[in-house]
Amino acid sequence: MIRIGILGCGRIGQVHARTLRGMDTAQIVAVSDFFPDAAETLAKTCGAETRSTEAILTSDDIDAVVVGTPTDTHFDIIKTAAANGKAIFCEKPVDMSADNIRTLIKDVEAAGVPFFTAFNRRFDPNFAHVQSRIAAGDIGNVELVTILSRDPSPPPISYIESSGGIFRDMMIHDFDMARFLLGEDVVTVYAAGSALVDPAIGEAGDVDTAAVTLTTASGKICQISNSRRATYGYDQRIEVHGEKGMLRAGNVLENTAQLATASGFQAAPTKHFFLERYADAYRIEMEAFIAHLSDPTVAIPTIHDGLAAQRMADAATESWQTGQPVTL
Amino acid sequence: MIRIGILGCGRIGQVHARTLRGMDTAQIVAVSDFFPDAAETLAKTCGAETRSTEAILTSDDIDAVVVGTPTDTHFDIIKTAAANGKAIFCEKPVDMSADNIRTLIKDVEAAGVPFFTAFNRRFDPNFAHVQSRIAAGDIGNVELVTILSRDPSPPPISYIESSGGIFRDMMIHDFDMARFLLGEDVVTVYAAGSALVDPAIGEAGDVDTAAVTLTTASGKICQISNSRRATYGYDQRIEVHGEKGMLRAGNVLENTAQLATASGFQAAPTKHFFLERYADAYRIEMEAFIAHLSDPTVAIPTIHDGLAAQRMADAATESWQTGQPVTL
Amino acid sequence: MIRIGILGCGRIGQVHARTLRGMDTAQIVAVSDFFPDAAETLAKTCGAETRSTEAILTSDDIDAVVVGTPTDTHFDIIKTAAANGKAIFCEKPVDMSADNIRTLIKDVEAAGVPFFTAFNRRFDPNFAHVQSRIAAGDIGNVELVTILSRDPSPPPISYIESSGGIFRDMMIHDFDMARFLLGEDVVTVYAAGSALVDPAIGEAGDVDTAAVTLTTASGKICQISNSRRATYGYDQRIEVHGEKGMLRAGNVLENTAQLATASGFQAAPTKHFFLERYADAYRIEMEAFIAHLSDPTVAIPTIHDGLAAQRMADAATESWQTGQPVTL
Amino acid sequence: MIRIGILGCGRIGQVHARTLRGMDTAQIVAVSDFFPDAAETLAKTCGAETRSTEAILTSDDIDAVVVGTPTDTHFDIIKTAAANGKAIFCEKPVDMSADNIRTLIKDVEAAGVPFFTAFNRRFDPNFAHVQSRIAAGDIGNVELVTILSRDPSPPPISYIESSGGIFRDMMIHDFDMARFLLGEDVVTVYAAGSALVDPAIGEAGDVDTAAVTLTTASGKICQISNSRRATYGYDQRIEVHGEKGMLRAGNVLENTAQLATASGFQAAPTKHFFLERYADAYRIEMEAFIAHLSDPTVAIPTIHDGLAAQRMADAATESWQTGQPVTL
Repeated sequence: MIRIGILGCGRIGQVHARTLRGMDTAQIVAVSDFFPDAAETLAKTCGAETRSTEAILTSDDIDAVVVGTPTDTHFDIIKTAAANGKAIFCEKPVDMSADNIRTLIKDVEAAGVPFFTAFNRRFDPNFAHVQSRIAAGDIGNVELVTILSRDPSPPPISYIESSGGIFRDMMIHDFDMARFLLGEDVVTVYAAGSALVDPAIGEAGDVDTAAVTLTTASGKICQISNSRRATYGYDQRIEVHGEKGMLRAGNVLENTAQLATASGFQAAPTKHFFLERYADAYRIEMEAFIAHLSDPTVAIPTIHDGLAAQRMADAATESWQTGQPVTL
Repeated sequence: MIRIGILGCGRIGQVHARTLRGMDTAQIVAVSDFFPDAAETLAKTCGAETRSTEAILTSDDIDAVVVGTPTDTHFDIIKTAAANGKAIFCEKPVDMSADNIRTLIKDVEAAGVPFFTAFNRRFDPNFAHVQSRIAAGDIGNVELVTILSRDPSPPPISYIESSGGIFRDMMIHDFDMARFLLGEDVVTVYAAGSALVDPAIGEAGDVDTAAVTLTTASGKICQISNSRRATYGYDQRIEVHGEKGMLRAGNVLENTAQLATASGFQAAPTKHFFLERYADAYRIEMEAFIAHLSDPTVAIPTIHDGLAAQRMADAATESWQTGQPVTL
Repeated sequence: MIRIGILGCGRIGQVHARTLRGMDTAQIVAVSDFFPDAAETLAKTCGAETRSTEAILTSDDIDAVVVGTPTDTHFDIIKTAAANGKAIFCEKPVDMSADNIRTLIKDVEAAGVPFFTAFNRRFDPNFAHVQSRIAAGDIGNVELVTILSRDPSPPPISYIESSGGIFRDMMIHDFDMARFLLGEDVVTVYAAGSALVDPAIGEAGDVDTAAVTLTTASGKICQISNSRRATYGYDQRIEVHGEKGMLRAGNVLENTAQLATASGFQAAPTKHFFLERYADAYRIEMEAFIAHLSDPTVAIPTIHDGLAAQRMADAATESWQTGQPVTL
Repeated sequence: MIRIGILGCGRIGQVHARTLRGMDTAQIVAVSDFFPDAAETLAKTCGAETRSTEAILTSDDIDAVVVGTPTDTHFDIIKTAAANGKAIFCEKPVDMSADNIRTLIKDVEAAGVPFFTAFNRRFDPNFAHVQSRIAAGDIGNVELVTILSRDPSPPPISYIESSGGIFRDMMIHDFDMARFLLGEDVVTVYAAGSALVDPAIGEAGDVDTAAVTLTTASGKICQISNSRRATYGYDQRIEVHGEKGMLRAGNVLENTAQLATASGFQAAPTKHFFLERYADAYRIEMEAFIAHLSDPTVAIPTIHDGLAAQRMADAATESWQTGQPVTL
């Protein structure tokens, strides 16, 4: 039985708590939040205590922590958690600074604690199926990857301003997905971007429409595109072209119903946003984390994966700003 | 808070218990099962007591019972539950005998207790969406309904022998769906059937491949077909043709992945069987039952719906046996 | 080079003429029509002569005739054509009377002339592909066939009145398709029908919405449904369920474009009507006829196929009128 | 009646001849080819004469020429045709040198002759439908375009060597499609490419897998990818994301049949290659050319479109070679 402390009781902390409550192999012992009410509410639902974050990180009766606090708190939390021998499940991004992540890698490796970077999309059953068939050799060598991610609508400008920009905030998921599907590190990043959805996003120094080209040492190519707006829902697709064939995973629609009229055949929009679309992925990633703690052969996204994606996001940001490709 | 007793702790009882545990408006107080171990196991998971069925039906601290016991126990359970003023959620079929159901209707109506016949497919989000759009007038008057239901593989012959036959055991869901979609009672039933999947099914006096035509008083027509075998998974589709257009709901596949090779484009098989395929429907129907108890305007399938489907199943069985259409 | 006479220069005669003009193995020598202008126009386009029907049927320089005249002229034309040793390509139905067709079978067989009943749908590339895979054993023994055919809108009442009714006029194509896919003759026919689209069709003694169940000696079952109205275009689908899997062929849409908006994903309507939907089938059936004349192993629908479909249409009509299944 | 001379009687010349033979508004008067036999064969099929290319270009009885000869002959033919007042239908590319095309633009405009650059894909009914709905405002301002083009298998190395490279030979179609869909000229081109399909293509100084990012002055972005190999057929897809929604056009499959087995649902591969996939487009573009000659408001791809695509191909080639984006 893995004894869990949940740090951060917001939306994503609640999602993970729900998964953990349904598992026989884990138990939520304590939760903390900057807002005491939030911690109280979740604690009650889980039959857990509230404690301070510091107390959770140093308690003897906690084996692992789930870090769902704001990104700027991750660095200190991870350092303390590692120093206290806690296994760590950390929401992305690990840290906005690649250098900070490098520091944390040393601490985590020195402590020898398991570290799970929560790239939940690797655990989406559709995308995971694609990756497993690539791994099984069904399409031979991967040559060309296409990733399309579009949010239903842009976040508030206040969020944009503190987000680190579209490449670090939104496309970071696609950078990790690219590495997951390419099976190889990326050496060149070229980014184009425009503020087409909302000029205010441009005035905030960011873009809302972006396209990136990645190339690997062996010549594999990946194209990613992002938009902060999709009227038809949350658009999440991948496609992998290899020497023996092509694998892709399409959108998940709200339902399978179709209406046929003189206008043609109308299917449902996509599931609206990430909590619905990736509900299974959130559950499965937490199960994988818990399973990994007793069986280290269960594959997880590591802190190195967190660093790699962050470096790609930094490079894409630089490429967009300079107009030149960036070599990693 | 609705206080629940669960009668029958097998597969379906466990499914309903899981839903109820996740709800704030219901609480599982006690469970019972013919096998004490099954009751103990579920009770422990739910934080509930084990009691005898009789005790649950007569306890003052139970508001509603979930009946998931074998069909031949339903009659006595429902009579006692009604006599004790319990709301009743009952797995289909209510009873194998339409006359028995008529008797129970009197008891249930005399007692004035809510009765939910668990035709779970009405709550499948795909099928429910189709029905809601029919109700909204999107295709005008319904003219022609097509229902295809195929199980992945036949049950054991021992099950077949005590099942009441394909029309009462399997197609009964489609009969209810036909009424749900036609919005009108059926007056004529014609059935054809063959034992093509397994001759042993024929020797047991049943068929494994069946087709039924239903007509209503206003001339609407419904075609249903069933097979006890579908190599590609659990095949569940409906299509409704109306004066202004057509609505349909297709299968739910295991995932959205596609593999393209020289053989073409290959999509996943359907979700394998009813627990996976109708996981949402089982959850939503239970939520509807609980909601109905405090708000009777929440629509539910009633015991009259249970009777109507059973009468159609009886008529189809007779039609298959005589080769003649049967008028209800 | 097969020398062709075309009898009937209406819409379907023109379709066949266009195919024949593009072939190296056939030459249109002469055409005839009740309306001299129609014959003149087609003759000019084809570089052919106009002659009387009688002259074409008895000319030495004609090897084969394409019969696209009204159904009530078929009997005499076929008799004369056979007596003069012409190969015959005849639009469906061969004749409205099964007895007349039996008479013609004798004449055709006595004369030893090839006879092609123009069940064009057998040559649709989609349906033909399904049938070829059944024949290749890809789904094992066929168990259950579903055929859905819906016209975009009903013909004029005047047409209905002289059509022989929906089973002989419209469903006859599906009866032939059923035999093509079942690979076996049908022994029982049950039909239901309603006038839901237009009461005037009912007043004319016909129905516009119809459902038929067919069973074969070995127990295979086929369900057919027809409607005289489909707002979304010409709906033409088949599905064949067998012991090893399922084969189906869906609609042909006007284009592959999709529009995604808040309402979901919208695809095009189906190709509007039979000339567009079956353009390939009309071409391929004529090529098969010409090929058959020099290579009798090329499979064609024979006059026996024409008789079988007509008998099924008669039986369905009787079943609908009496409400009882009819045994063939 | 437009009197046509066909220059080049190879595969594409034959395709255009077939379309012209079926039209009432055009007549093929004469054909020419470097190989006299090819010219003789086509002339016979068309009921036309054979003449020398020079004779056709200067004949008084020729209104328009269809240029399907090797690219290196286009320059002289177009100069002569323009000087002799012939309307010109010219296969892409107009010329491998953008400077040569600029010269030809002067000649063509001085002569005032119509010039059709045969970007056939603009006339594909699927892609044309997408463009027409963009033009109708159905998705508002275009923001992001995705174009995927993959050939079934690479051409011979000898072809590669004289092709001008993948960007000029293959992706040039996609460059024109990008302009067609973006509705705006491109200002920045970034290209990545690898020889992954066949090392011999790399040794020939070309790539077989390529990805390009285009940006316009207003910030619209287009991503194109090409591969010289697709085991599942000829892969041709476009997708256009705009402020109000998304429009896309998918592949055209060989047929609509699907086989369902334990492996899932298998659809047909795509139509194999360009003659089948774009059969309608070839016909419709020629009809547009002929229509344009009598009605100049019929929109056609002009020689300026030919120049724009060629300049994009040159820029992409340079970008791939230097690793830097190129500004047009």
